[in-house]
Amino acid sequence: MNPDHASLFAAARDHADTLARHRLVLYAGANLPSPEVSAATAPGLGAMPAMGPSFDKEQPGTEMVSRFEVAVREEACALFGAAWAEPRLPSATLCNLAVFHAFARPGDLMLAPGAAHGGHLSQRRGGTPELAGLACAELPFDATGLCLDTAGAARMVEQRRPRLVMLGRSVMVRPDDIAEVVAAARAVGATTVFDASHVAGLIAGGTYPNPLSQGVDVLVTSTYKTLPGMPHGLVLGRDPAQGEALARLLDARFLANYNAALLPPLLRLLVAMRTGAAAYAARIVANTAALASACRQRGLPVIAPEAGHTHQFLIPIDPDVEPRALIATLAASGVIVGLCPDITRPGRTALRVGTQFLATLGLGALAMEEVAGLLAALLTGPEGVSPRTVAGDVPARIAALLAR
Amino acid sequence: MNPDHASLFAAARDHADTLARHRLVLYAGANLPSPEVSAATAPGLGAMPAMGPSFDKEQPGTEMVSRFEVAVREEACALFGAAWAEPRLPSATLCNLAVFHAFARPGDLMLAPGAAHGGHLSQRRGGTPELAGLACAELPFDATGLCLDTAGAARMVEQRRPRLVMLGRSVMVRPDDIAEVVAAARAVGATTVFDASHVAGLIAGGTYPNPLSQGVDVLVTSTYKTLPGMPHGLVLGRDPAQGEALARLLDARFLANYNAALLPPLLRLLVAMRTGAAAYAARIVANTAALASACRQRGLPVIAPEAGHTHQFLIPIDPDVEPRALIATLAASGVIVGLCPDITRPGRTALRVGTQFLATLGLGALAMEEVAGLLAALLTGPEGVSPRTVAGDVPARIAALLAR
Repeated sequence: MNPDHASLFAAARDHADTLARHRLVLYAGANLPSPEVSAATAPGLGAMPAMGPSFDKEQPGTEMVSRFEVAVREEACALFGAAWAEPRLPSATLCNLAVFHAFARPGDLMLAPGAAHGGHLSQRRGGTPELAGLACAELPFDATGLCLDTAGAARMVEQRRPRLVMLGRSVMVRPDDIAEVVAAARAVGATTVFDASHVAGLIAGGTYPNPLSQGVDVLVTSTYKTLPGMPHGLVLGRDPAQGEALARLLDARFLANYNAALLPPLLRLLVAMRTGAAAYAARIVANTAALASACRQRGLPVIAPEAGHTHQFLIPIDPDVEPRALIATLAASGVIVGLCPDITRPGRTALRVGTQFLATLGLGALAMEEVAGLLAALLTGPEGVSPRTVAGDVPARIAALLAR
Repeated sequence: MNPDHASLFAAARDHADTLARHRLVLYAGANLPSPEVSAATAPGLGAMPAMGPSFDKEQPGTEMVSRFEVAVREEACALFGAAWAEPRLPSATLCNLAVFHAFARPGDLMLAPGAAHGGHLSQRRGGTPELAGLACAELPFDATGLCLDTAGAARMVEQRRPRLVMLGRSVMVRPDDIAEVVAAARAVGATTVFDASHVAGLIAGGTYPNPLSQGVDVLVTSTYKTLPGMPHGLVLGRDPAQGEALARLLDARFLANYNAALLPPLLRLLVAMRTGAAAYAARIVANTAALASACRQRGLPVIAPEAGHTHQFLIPIDPDVEPRALIATLAASGVIVGLCPDITRPGRTALRVGTQFLATLGLGALAMEEVAGLLAALLTGPEGVSPRTVAGDVPARIAALLAR
């Protein structure tokens, strides 16, 4: 074997431990599955296809896969208050694509969040919807309230009469009020989809309003952001007929087979969340509020609501600083954080700071003081941040913080 | 935790062992990864996204994912003689969908294998190509020669001037001769795609002609049929510009993130195949020839070539027998085999018998005598098989065979 590969395999095996002990992971779309979740991966279940409905599959000898499909569906429905769940898709982006194909036709109009407001490429114009031939128009955003302009969105739905309305974004620093737009969509016969990839764990834990309870038809999520699982996709919904339509599409055109080895870790995650999501979500939200406050106290600019936090807030970047160079500088000190549009100032970029990874490691609100201190040691600027002269003791301070 | 879940997790953990020790897996589209391959799964690598080109990703701290992407590409290109490889797609079906979007536009014509000749739903009319808006016309098949009618296909390419020509099928009992159709496709500017999901391990091992060497533009494969890996997808090709176009599509519209935890097991598989594929493929093909011959000697009808075997052959089913009931009966005795169209008699169904799973377990040509004996104990019929009165000792005979 290539000796480089040997060192690479060893480093891969140790990488989760490296992240947990030597990196301050503030990336808002990341998480670390527990050892129990990871260890549930069952390669035997992926050894052959299991195509078609549970317990009516094309392949014999697949009863155990069917049992996991049913168990995952039941746990997911219980966790999110859904009537149906589709557990076979590998990512939220592919969930969105499958949903577009199942519930719209080429040429149909979808209202969707814009990139400047934190819409994900799988939701918006120029991204995944193009593959399904959808026309996209941007939903209005309330930059002052840091949330969807629900009244404006409702008016747009009434005027444009879209086939689909896509809600949720990658950047959500507080819960959107979606009641009005959901009612408008229902009135014109549009199907509503909420991409909860970033806030699914908060919905499960009750700190973010449940879109399905508010009348949304279809909820899509990934499983490794505020849910502490391995990467996977889930689609859930209210109308069983829509679940069956999606399943038929997957069987006939979209999936054929899938890797059922990944169902047991997904089931482990959902079972753990049924009892653990409330405390986990409460910790995340409390940490976000504490970290935003501690950053402000240290003079860092923060875009966050007064109350009603999620797992993330923004730190605007000085427009004279190259954003990717800034996050590379932070990463060189062990701080892993991503970029997003500054949702309050068009054309500008912000750091998107997420607290869910640290919550998984057991860090609480008190530890957020030291996290803010680390950020203030690396960043400066009252309106938009730029890098300070690098504080050489940051890696040691991170290791000390994570060793507690 | 639900006590049913506890037993379910335990059964999932043991399932690979159950398949290896207590089931005669003759399903032609299955395989079991080695313990080394499975154990290489690295949840830490999947903990956060790694979007964009290797070493130029949106997310900081993703250098190790980039190193695995590069290593997988290099190993895959070496194994298949390709100029580029795309390692990020989770299944061959999704590879095909991505290829359709990357290299064709809605309304374009694709010539593709028909379902009656073993075309997979991801290749053919009514299946995955519909999602990309492709029009499909069926390539001609030589039912006597049990292979593609390459001269007829070449004429069809000249007449119809398609955008894409899809080669390869789920049912391939001998290598197709594709030279003429590939030349015709090149002459009209059509892109050729070969779905090697079933025969990739035989191509790597040199017992099936390499489509890329024969001028095919794009090769798509899954990794758990004649390649003994975990389920995954690979796309490979000859023209680096096509690889870049596919990668851009994945980044901008199709994938966003993917589960990089699965790259290390894919790299392990490819490294093992670089030295092991030749012997493995030779064993598979020898076993197929031996098993087909031994079945014929026991009076079972067999659809297989005189020479030039792959990993599979067909046993036609009596038209008065319900095929799914037959495979359920076989499964009740521990024999796992699937169905396919009888490629020689339209409208009729056959058992598709594959030998690659048993080759992975180390069984050789001599053991095929006992495998044929087990099939003959369960099946009867000179033209098409029906179930015998069940021989109650079959499970014990399977366990004895696999314990050797």
